[in-house]
Amino acid sequence: VYEILARTVYGKRRRAEVGVDRLINEGVYKAAFPLHEGPFQLPKYGVCPEELNQRQVLYHYWARWYKWYKYQPLDHIREYFGEKIAFYFAWLFYTAWLLPAAVVGTLVFVSGVMSMGTNMPKEICKSGGSYLMCPLCNTCKAWNMSDICTMAKMGYLFDHPGTVFFSVFMSFWAVTFLEYWKRKMATLAHHWDCMDFHEEEQERPRPEFAAMAPTMEQNPVTGVKEPYFPEKTRLSRMFTGSMIIIMMLCVVMIFLVTVVMCRGIISVMMFHTGSPVLRTEAGTIANISGSIVNLGLILLMGRVYTALAEQLTKWMHRTQTQYDNAFIFKVFIFQFVNFYSSPFYVAFFKGFVGYPTNYGTLFGMRNEDCGPGGCLIELAQQLFIIMVGKQLINNIQEFIIKMKAWHQKHTLSKVLGGKASQEPRRWEKDYQLVECEGLFEEYLEMVLQFGFITIFVAAFPLAPLFALLNNWVEIRLDAHKFVCDYRRPVAERAQNIGVWFNILEALSHLSVIANLQAFLIAFTSEFLPRLLYQYKYDNELHGYVNFTLAYAPLNYTEFPLCYKAYRDNNGNYTLFYWELLAVRLGFIIAFEQHLVFFVLRAIDWIVPDVPESLELKIKRERYLAKQALAENQEALL
Amino acid sequence: VYEILARTVYGKRRRAEVGVDRLINEGVYKAAFPLHEGPFQLPKYGVCPEELNQRQVLYHYWARWYKWYKYQPLDHIREYFGEKIAFYFAWLFYTAWLLPAAVVGTLVFVSGVMSMGTNMPKEICKSGGSYLMCPLCNTCKAWNMSDICTMAKMGYLFDHPGTVFFSVFMSFWAVTFLEYWKRKMATLAHHWDCMDFHEEEQERPRPEFAAMAPTMEQNPVTGVKEPYFPEKTRLSRMFTGSMIIIMMLCVVMIFLVTVVMCRGIISVMMFHTGSPVLRTEAGTIANISGSIVNLGLILLMGRVYTALAEQLTKWMHRTQTQYDNAFIFKVFIFQFVNFYSSPFYVAFFKGFVGYPTNYGTLFGMRNEDCGPGGCLIELAQQLFIIMVGKQLINNIQEFIIKMKAWHQKHTLSKVLGGKASQEPRRWEKDYQLVECEGLFEEYLEMVLQFGFITIFVAAFPLAPLFALLNNWVEIRLDAHKFVCDYRRPVAERAQNIGVWFNILEALSHLSVIANLQAFLIAFTSEFLPRLLYQYKYDNELHGYVNFTLAYAPLNYTEFPLCYKAYRDNNGNYTLFYWELLAVRLGFIIAFEQHLVFFVLRAIDWIVPDVPESLELKIKRERYLAKQALAENQEALL
Repeated sequence: VYEILARTVYGKRRRAEVGVDRLINEGVYKAAFPLHEGPFQLPKYGVCPEELNQRQVLYHYWARWYKWYKYQPLDHIREYFGEKIAFYFAWLFYTAWLLPAAVVGTLVFVSGVMSMGTNMPKEICKSGGSYLMCPLCNTCKAWNMSDICTMAKMGYLFDHPGTVFFSVFMSFWAVTFLEYWKRKMATLAHHWDCMDFHEEEQERPRPEFAAMAPTMEQNPVTGVKEPYFPEKTRLSRMFTGSMIIIMMLCVVMIFLVTVVMCRGIISVMMFHTGSPVLRTEAGTIANISGSIVNLGLILLMGRVYTALAEQLTKWMHRTQTQYDNAFIFKVFIFQFVNFYSSPFYVAFFKGFVGYPTNYGTLFGMRNEDCGPGGCLIELAQQLFIIMVGKQLINNIQEFIIKMKAWHQKHTLSKVLGGKASQEPRRWEKDYQLVECEGLFEEYLEMVLQFGFITIFVAAFPLAPLFALLNNWVEIRLDAHKFVCDYRRPVAERAQNIGVWFNILEALSHLSVIANLQAFLIAFTSEFLPRLLYQYKYDNELHGYVNFTLAYAPLNYTEFPLCYKAYRDNNGNYTLFYWELLAVRLGFIIAFEQHLVFFVLRAIDWIVPDVPESLELKIKRERYLAKQALAENQEALL
Repeated sequence: VYEILARTVYGKRRRAEVGVDRLINEGVYKAAFPLHEGPFQLPKYGVCPEELNQRQVLYHYWARWYKWYKYQPLDHIREYFGEKIAFYFAWLFYTAWLLPAAVVGTLVFVSGVMSMGTNMPKEICKSGGSYLMCPLCNTCKAWNMSDICTMAKMGYLFDHPGTVFFSVFMSFWAVTFLEYWKRKMATLAHHWDCMDFHEEEQERPRPEFAAMAPTMEQNPVTGVKEPYFPEKTRLSRMFTGSMIIIMMLCVVMIFLVTVVMCRGIISVMMFHTGSPVLRTEAGTIANISGSIVNLGLILLMGRVYTALAEQLTKWMHRTQTQYDNAFIFKVFIFQFVNFYSSPFYVAFFKGFVGYPTNYGTLFGMRNEDCGPGGCLIELAQQLFIIMVGKQLINNIQEFIIKMKAWHQKHTLSKVLGGKASQEPRRWEKDYQLVECEGLFEEYLEMVLQFGFITIFVAAFPLAPLFALLNNWVEIRLDAHKFVCDYRRPVAERAQNIGVWFNILEALSHLSVIANLQAFLIAFTSEFLPRLLYQYKYDNELHGYVNFTLAYAPLNYTEFPLCYKAYRDNNGNYTLFYWELLAVRLGFIIAFEQHLVFFVLRAIDWIVPDVPESLELKIKRERYLAKQALAENQEALL
């Protein structure tokens, strides 16, 4: 039964309102899937390559670990799995582009390590007890500037002129990569002959949609009568959907505040333990544990929301493509806020604490200050935990799928074990495999990673390196999963990677246009204050630390305490503060906004989306087609 | 002879290496043109509309003055003149979009007039002799603040909160208009069935190109042997071309500096006449006469450059379309700098003069300062002269064409007068008309006008009104010219308005992305200083004038003199200056950059380039074509 059903589905390549899908939904059949071409294991004794089946070829030349240095056989993948999956693996070629970014990022990091001692204001370590600083929280004690010597040195790793260069480099990298990918997509689509493939025209309504639709209406394109939702109910459903998204985003924000408060509490607790080590590292410990809690919440919320989004999208969209796009968009918007809100908060909002006698508060608790090493190092820590932690958990999930596959195989082979004498047939073997879960999770992971790299790279130059390592593993893991562990998925045609490309482009635009990187460098890093001080006062940064400190007002404590700000004794901003603010804003406008942005626009504008040679080919084909049509017409007359 | 030739050309609609064009070039024939359908004059006695020829219909319903309130009959224009010219007149529909902009602009201007006395610092007019100001040039004398009372009131017309609103409004207007135009273009192209018209594929090489090309090569699309330029010489020619453009731009810059110096000399001369009227108005007179000289130079340079560009482009491009695009691009780049450099200079560079004892100089002459009314009013004057002057001169040119037509008709009819008895034949009559000069000049004028409106509108809210009046005249003038004065042009197919649309888009992007309007409001207008003063010190602007003035250093003169700047007695900037600078830059980033730009991107992204109903139609057609093809194939088998 499987085989026949599977073949029917494979032959038709579309989902109908009636048919196998419905029968499976109603529990008549347990599964329907196309068959693999044979075992993936290579025969024990030597066999010439021509005799291998497609699956064995893919396994042998692609899905094994020690092929890690090879390009991927995209044509073979396409032949076996269809264009949609082949485009996913083609997109993973992004890994190769990560290589230069990772190299430059590592170089920047190493140069930071090398010059750690040299270009830093030396007063921090040498000051001894001369700078007594205001406590960082209400119940904390005053501390000495010299206590944070190591922290400040660490902070320099992520906050030196190299990061500015790297941030510009990565802007160019992102835009160049997307340009390249557009061309690559066009080339592949032409090569696979699916350039003129218009999904919507060839798709039938989804069964869920058809079941829910109250009326029938003529399809304006094909003229066939089809299930139809009136415009009116559509609007109200959209409204409900948006409301739920907004509600969920509020929940994310509430969790964010919770984590912030939890961090504050941990930090206060650390101070009260009395241990000197815990006290100096209080901020770091609070930050790291806070980030881990945050990561847990992010993943939990992601799960909950994805399930919810599936329910929300279920009966809204006519075709599978529309459904997929809406679902992807919904989940991405949410995950974007979910993943990036916490780094955003650290990067752009954590610094604003007010000043002694006039601290800002949140629910009666004093606003968090960044640790003594600066906000940038906290951001780097958090990015490291979220990004690398997410990757680790993802890889663990992949492992769980493997376990599941093994378990399913084990239990099913026991059931089939009764008629042990005969070899189980192909469909029985394939039925033991795990059902293919689609590419949604895979793409989402990659896109979020791309976002981390393009938006926050100024704070964490090692991000591309970690991404590279992760993806190198990811490619072969995915390959192995598709070849060995999954039932063969129904091959689907596609013209490109679909809505994911729009999301990638939006991400890269966001980071460049919204100037997030420039804001990060201008406001979060100490690059500009140092530069301005060097320009105005002392090229060697002598006296810089003293210059950045202000005395707390006398009614705050009985003896003079310092805090970091450019303020006079009454708490008003000094002239230098305003100069610095003007320089910061000028930097954002002049440097990133105009320089980088114009160059990027120019690249986008000059580089054609379709390679010239391909363009010529397409024109030639169109010309020949026209000629042939004309001749055909004449012949008919 | 004419008639046959004319018909041949009209039938083929393409220019060949051999053929009529070449024969005309070599002087064998004097002209070749399609014939008009008959006289444009209406018959004296009543005739029913069905009996009118196309030309009469166009004349009657379109090309006459008292049809000024009517929409244009685009389908008829297309039928008679071809798609290319019809698209030009469709684009002139931009005039209708100018209506709301002109209304809002006028309202903003009127509201400025109404509130002229109220929201202005009153100290200027009431100060009497209390503010003695530093002289505006080296040989000028000190002057009283109260002298410029009228000027300051005038300045307020162009510099009040309404202009900020209007500038935002116009950003939206420009982007919405372009979105609308994209959709309109698509609809027209579909309606006229030229959506899939690919010019390059159907065009033959231009005769000039063919004559110059050293080798023959196979055309990669059609496979036909064609004249060909090797890549190598192409590069060197491009290099020469760019060098010449850069040289010409340098000449423009030199002229700009000349005008600046000339303005300075005029202003000094005015001061030395001794007449008190001339002295107070010296700046204005100098500015106006300078602008007129400038306009003359602009038009002269434009002429010279266009001739040069024709020579430069002549043997570079294979097809007529490529040639046109390259020529348009070349001339536009030049004219852009030519027309806008002088307003640019006034808007963004004229203010920087230094301060007493430390003036900046240029070739030994002290840098120009803006007149006492502020830079914005000078900018408005200059825009008025350049924009309205240009329009007047253009309309005079149109008139000259009419004169030429009349003259040509007159002399030719004399020649033909010999055989007076018989009515001259159609081709003889048409030969008496002027040859059609193409749409280049018309488009260029409109595009430059669009640039003035989108880039400098903050300084001159009446610009859309003047543009509207001009275009209203322009439509009927052009219509009349095409119907009555020109020989009928060879009808050409086109898919849209071509490269002009890219230029329009680039202009609107430039004004929004490069933030020119925001820079203008932030730095050239007094909007932000006033706002900050109101916020920090006094809501009624009491003491504002005094606050903006600084005393010149004591070594400059023996008694205290004022100048406009936020400086202390040593010439250093005050805290307020830096605050203001931060506010200005913050305004640029926050307001225009993020708010306006994001909303505009969103509009661009959300509004589809092709209307939904048209999209459905296209899909339906494609579906039916595919069906028909499939049936045809089956029938053949």
